[in-house]
Amino acid sequence: MSKKIPHRLYLTEEQMPKAWYNLRADMKEQPDPMLNPATGKPATEEDLYPVFCKALAHQEMDSETRYVEIPEPIQDFYKMYRPSPLIRAYNLEKALDTPARIYYKFEGNNTSGSHKLNSAVAQAYYAKEQGLTSLTTETGAGQWGTALAEACSFFHLPLTVYMVKGSYHQKPFRKAIIQTFGGEVIASPSDTTEAGRKILAEHPDTTGSLGCAISEAVEKAVTTPGCRYVLGSVLNQVLLHQSIIGLESKIAMEMLDEYPDIIIGCAGGGSNLGGLIAPFMQDKLLGRANPEIIAVEPASCPSLTRGRYAYDYCDTGKITPMAKMYTLGCGFIPSPNHAGGLRYHGMSPILSKLYHDGYMRAVSVEQTRVFEAAVLFAQQETILPAPESAHAIRAAIDTALACKESGESKTILFGLTGTGYFDMTAYSSFHDGTMTDYIPSDEDLAIGFAGLPKIPGIQE
Amino acid sequence: MSKKIPHRLYLTEEQMPKAWYNLRADMKEQPDPMLNPATGKPATEEDLYPVFCKALAHQEMDSETRYVEIPEPIQDFYKMYRPSPLIRAYNLEKALDTPARIYYKFEGNNTSGSHKLNSAVAQAYYAKEQGLTSLTTETGAGQWGTALAEACSFFHLPLTVYMVKGSYHQKPFRKAIIQTFGGEVIASPSDTTEAGRKILAEHPDTTGSLGCAISEAVEKAVTTPGCRYVLGSVLNQVLLHQSIIGLESKIAMEMLDEYPDIIIGCAGGGSNLGGLIAPFMQDKLLGRANPEIIAVEPASCPSLTRGRYAYDYCDTGKITPMAKMYTLGCGFIPSPNHAGGLRYHGMSPILSKLYHDGYMRAVSVEQTRVFEAAVLFAQQETILPAPESAHAIRAAIDTALACKESGESKTILFGLTGTGYFDMTAYSSFHDGTMTDYIPSDEDLAIGFAGLPKIPGIQE
Repeated sequence: MSKKIPHRLYLTEEQMPKAWYNLRADMKEQPDPMLNPATGKPATEEDLYPVFCKALAHQEMDSETRYVEIPEPIQDFYKMYRPSPLIRAYNLEKALDTPARIYYKFEGNNTSGSHKLNSAVAQAYYAKEQGLTSLTTETGAGQWGTALAEACSFFHLPLTVYMVKGSYHQKPFRKAIIQTFGGEVIASPSDTTEAGRKILAEHPDTTGSLGCAISEAVEKAVTTPGCRYVLGSVLNQVLLHQSIIGLESKIAMEMLDEYPDIIIGCAGGGSNLGGLIAPFMQDKLLGRANPEIIAVEPASCPSLTRGRYAYDYCDTGKITPMAKMYTLGCGFIPSPNHAGGLRYHGMSPILSKLYHDGYMRAVSVEQTRVFEAAVLFAQQETILPAPESAHAIRAAIDTALACKESGESKTILFGLTGTGYFDMTAYSSFHDGTMTDYIPSDEDLAIGFAGLPKIPGIQE
Repeated sequence: MSKKIPHRLYLTEEQMPKAWYNLRADMKEQPDPMLNPATGKPATEEDLYPVFCKALAHQEMDSETRYVEIPEPIQDFYKMYRPSPLIRAYNLEKALDTPARIYYKFEGNNTSGSHKLNSAVAQAYYAKEQGLTSLTTETGAGQWGTALAEACSFFHLPLTVYMVKGSYHQKPFRKAIIQTFGGEVIASPSDTTEAGRKILAEHPDTTGSLGCAISEAVEKAVTTPGCRYVLGSVLNQVLLHQSIIGLESKIAMEMLDEYPDIIIGCAGGGSNLGGLIAPFMQDKLLGRANPEIIAVEPASCPSLTRGRYAYDYCDTGKITPMAKMYTLGCGFIPSPNHAGGLRYHGMSPILSKLYHDGYMRAVSVEQTRVFEAAVLFAQQETILPAPESAHAIRAAIDTALACKESGESKTILFGLTGTGYFDMTAYSSFHDGTMTDYIPSDEDLAIGFAGLPKIPGIQE
């Protein structure tokens, strides 16, 4: 059978999904509701209108609609860079001498360099439809900022991007590419917002964090008329849009008469993992199949493996609604880990709930082992992976090597979320031996946990 | 009909070409033979053995074999990143409001960021087959060096890359990516070769050129046992390997019931243009069709539009065989144009001959107009083009606008050779207004022409 499997499988335009899949519609137990920070009560759709445009606020709260039709203009945009290929890692398999069959869904073949474009175009489209006149966002590694700049440029929406300061300096060219698409880039924390000024006053030397950049972007959105905030991960709406990854993967695997025994994705806020696993998790929820699902996170920012399942703010400045999720505490500022996209204190509430209920497991991996995997992968598969994606590669390699030990010919599917062309500073530090591993101590984590909000009657 | 045309068309593995096409087999008049620099007589295949491995020396001289079977391991490597998509530029067409139908063959979706990998894997494979133990090469923009590093890593061949000094400093991350694939990078001119030391002595502040880097790489190859030199453009063998671009394009266009009226490619040494046009030029040579073919070169390095058709060395140090080609003189050192891949004094002898015989025309374009086109293209098609590729975009846009003027619904095919992720310094200088245009004066060119070799009885 393996002879017939091509290296790369692309769906045709006709085969591309016409609807996103909403995982919540099949979850027997729903994630706990978001809470309005002002009242401590469950947030309503209307509560979200000052921050999100209406269509997206609706998607955020809608746990009923199983399939959400993808508007025609978004489908057209998708056709510019999708479908993304499902790739059989023949050469990696050979190098590992494993009986496992390794597939990866490669989302990096677009200028944003990652899967982030899948949700960026949706969010820009709905904002334009509502007649909004500008958007703000944050970006960690820079993929999300680039993706949103592309989408905003296409739909003629001005954009301000708050970029985590550490990444801003590690990746100078990200700014130039976002500018090419007309976006304005500000290193966060900055003095352009109250939230930024407050954090700078407390931690003048901070390299920033996603949580902090979110605070600034949200503040800018709610204080600017016609402006809204958009977010590249964590949110339910983002997982909805990203389901395109899993839906395409599943169609492609069906064409190959394959079904994954193990599905692996890196997890920062959960956008990639949530999208990749969506239709397979559906099978699991409905008892149709039972694939093993593994979230991979950096040891430096281990929200699933060492965090608490608790209500927390999505941002450092505590102005967003509170979500029940695995979190290190919104006050946790991770070390300047090179995988900027995985430096978030929390995790998608949907994934957190599924993890809490035992539908998936999580592992954490150290940075230098991640880059070892990245270099091996690049040399065998000729794709230079993003550091974030390389977390999934590390776990896929470890799983394939375990198959070699046990002699099991399992089918592994992992998400290769993006390329590392803007991460060469990190690769250089790996090559010259200056890269270090950082694992927060229990004391480090305790500081973050101490800052978890107290909510009378819910979380004391 | 246009309704049925997808945005992106990928061939299946079964549809991929199994043989390269050798354009020389259908040329009624052959390019003039290469001359041995020591004797002034036509070079034999054996004359090339010290520089090239045997299979490649044979391909270089073989003007008879029409189709050259692609060895299985090269086909397998191709399947890791090919086929490349043929893309209909629906959004660019709309932005230009043109009746023209614009297609582009996108070669940038691999880690080298360009079409260069097509020949790199072939050259590394044949070197390994012959039992060679290392390779050297030069690189301008860095795509070729990256491509060859990928190929050498795959076939376990140590590699030394001489990188044009201007690009080396403009693109610091190219070095890191070549290192990821195990390649050594040296800024050229360097003090590691006699040729480099000589040029440094004469021009201590030079930013280098492809011709100079070639001299250094060839010298290193012929003075190192088991080592050979490989080149990413200009040579007949390279055009042979790059014919995969045109062959795939033609199959894809046939599937769409399309045939290009106009074919446009950027031209530095000619590798992309020669590959893209190959099967269409065959149609032209055999009288089966008559597409217009346009080479686009930078105004700063105008070998076709302002050069001489003469015998010249392929390198600045005058150690390579002499080729009859359009040239600015091997002593011409172009200004530090950002499109590093187009900074070569000469042009493929095959393309030079075809141009000389009227089978194609050439235009030159200025850098700032090229970047205007690049930004428009990126915003409409969401792909950030390499500066080299953007030369073709400029000409394609100009052609489409001419169609708008005349009301003609022509079919345009252009080669999008690569992505610009490592060219953000150039994009930044365009954004901040510091980019300038440079056009050599007739006096500048006269210096290069004065250095053309004198060959008794052939070129006085």
